[in-house]
Amino acid sequence: MAELVYIDGKFVPPGEAMVSVDDRGFVFADGVYEVIAVYDGRPFKLPEHLARLARSAEGIQLPLPVNRAELKKIIKEGLTQSGLLDAQIYLQITRGVAPRSHPFPGGIPSNLVVRLQTERKIAAEVRERGVSVITTEEIRWRRCDIKSIALLPNVLAAQKAVEEGAFEAVFVTSEGIVHEGARSNIFMVVDNRVYTPPQTENILAGITREVVLQCAQDLGCQVYDETLRIGALLQADEVFLTNTTIQILQGRKESIA
Amino acid sequence: MAELVYIDGKFVPPGEAMVSVDDRGFVFADGVYEVIAVYDGRPFKLPEHLARLARSAEGIQLPLPVNRAELKKIIKEGLTQSGLLDAQIYLQITRGVAPRSHPFPGGIPSNLVVRLQTERKIAAEVRERGVSVITTEEIRWRRCDIKSIALLPNVLAAQKAVEEGAFEAVFVTSEGIVHEGARSNIFMVVDNRVYTPPQTENILAGITREVVLQCAQDLGCQVYDETLRIGALLQADEVFLTNTTIQILQGRKESIA
Repeated sequence: MAELVYIDGKFVPPGEAMVSVDDRGFVFADGVYEVIAVYDGRPFKLPEHLARLARSAEGIQLPLPVNRAELKKIIKEGLTQSGLLDAQIYLQITRGVAPRSHPFPGGIPSNLVVRLQTERKIAAEVRERGVSVITTEEIRWRRCDIKSIALLPNVLAAQKAVEEGAFEAVFVTSEGIVHEGARSNIFMVVDNRVYTPPQTENILAGITREVVLQCAQDLGCQVYDETLRIGALLQADEVFLTNTTIQILQGRKESIA
Repeated sequence: MAELVYIDGKFVPPGEAMVSVDDRGFVFADGVYEVIAVYDGRPFKLPEHLARLARSAEGIQLPLPVNRAELKKIIKEGLTQSGLLDAQIYLQITRGVAPRSHPFPGGIPSNLVVRLQTERKIAAEVRERGVSVITTEEIRWRRCDIKSIALLPNVLAAQKAVEEGAFEAVFVTSEGIVHEGARSNIFMVVDNRVYTPPQTENILAGITREVVLQCAQDLGCQVYDETLRIGALLQADEVFLTNTTIQILQGRKESIA
């Protein structure tokens, strides 16, 4: 088993996977991405991830360099070549290589990078104990529904969480409205009802978020995707985070600061 | 004369300048940059650019991989080796190469890339005629004073300008407050008084902006860096844009939409 990167049309070891310093992903964050979990050799919710990728790309007028069928083929081939069974697929598309100038260069191919890597697993004791969370001011751009690689604000928020001994930082507006974590969606449970912020331009349409909402409904829980206020969150019976890597991770309630 | 890129401690032709797909600049926009003009072999306002670079890096807790004296030496050496006299220096620092995880990896060197390239010149007739400008909703993050590479919103705004036949897009809040262009600061002149938005977290501390404010004062103009409203801008006697590449570029007043 070996990690592999698909780049320039072929699979190479990660150490050999390089991009030009003129790639617009490197100088402009001009790209979008997906992270897909693989369980027992099978990508989880692949059609949903590829549909979201297409939406993100459309949101920044980025042409996909290959169609979905070809993308699935590349992923399948990568899984076979790497031999990974429980894995993670990191997939990024940028607007390609061109002399640095803000407007789209036009006439150049988008750059597809697919990284097949070992599973990023949350330790069982962390999952059992739950994680602490801090809040941080929402300072990101207004199109967080686009899964873009312009993630510097998320990086800074995640780092702030680490520095304060927490696992995640949750963006809250100055009006006290809760959006989402730096790399997760957030839920609360009150009286067996499940709440999560609505799908607006302020949050990512999490694939795991959708799975959880569906599961909750299937279990007969009432589900509300409506504006979530920090005051309500702090008094919830339960809070949890979702994303592809962490799946569902419960918050340690006393820890939310 | 040849364009050159300083990377991994040496100068190479641009086509050979590559970074890892795991560089945090490529996956997270976790970096800062500067663009410096070179006239007749001499970088313009170099100390000011390097001071701003240090401020940007500090703003994202990014350690500079070399000190300012070493950076000046690299630039000087690059200019000598390239033989370029009228040139542009593009300088970018990212948080280095590490397995993808939002918080800072720690213990790895920042990645310095310096690109010595030919001058990006505005055609004389464009400069004479002036350029048209569109306004676009301010959707960027709240720390535009940090010259980060998370430029996707600026890219989209600049592209929108091109699509509408304009040179630049100016970010205006829903309250009608003018911030700056996608890659320029903006000024207006009314009754020989010079106005530009104040230095807040919403705009970049343009080096050319500062030079222009100083020149205007030296010429005896009254200078105001105060909140600029779109209504006032539309009625100004004159509007102009500034940045390192365009220097000063006048707006065609009838064109502001």
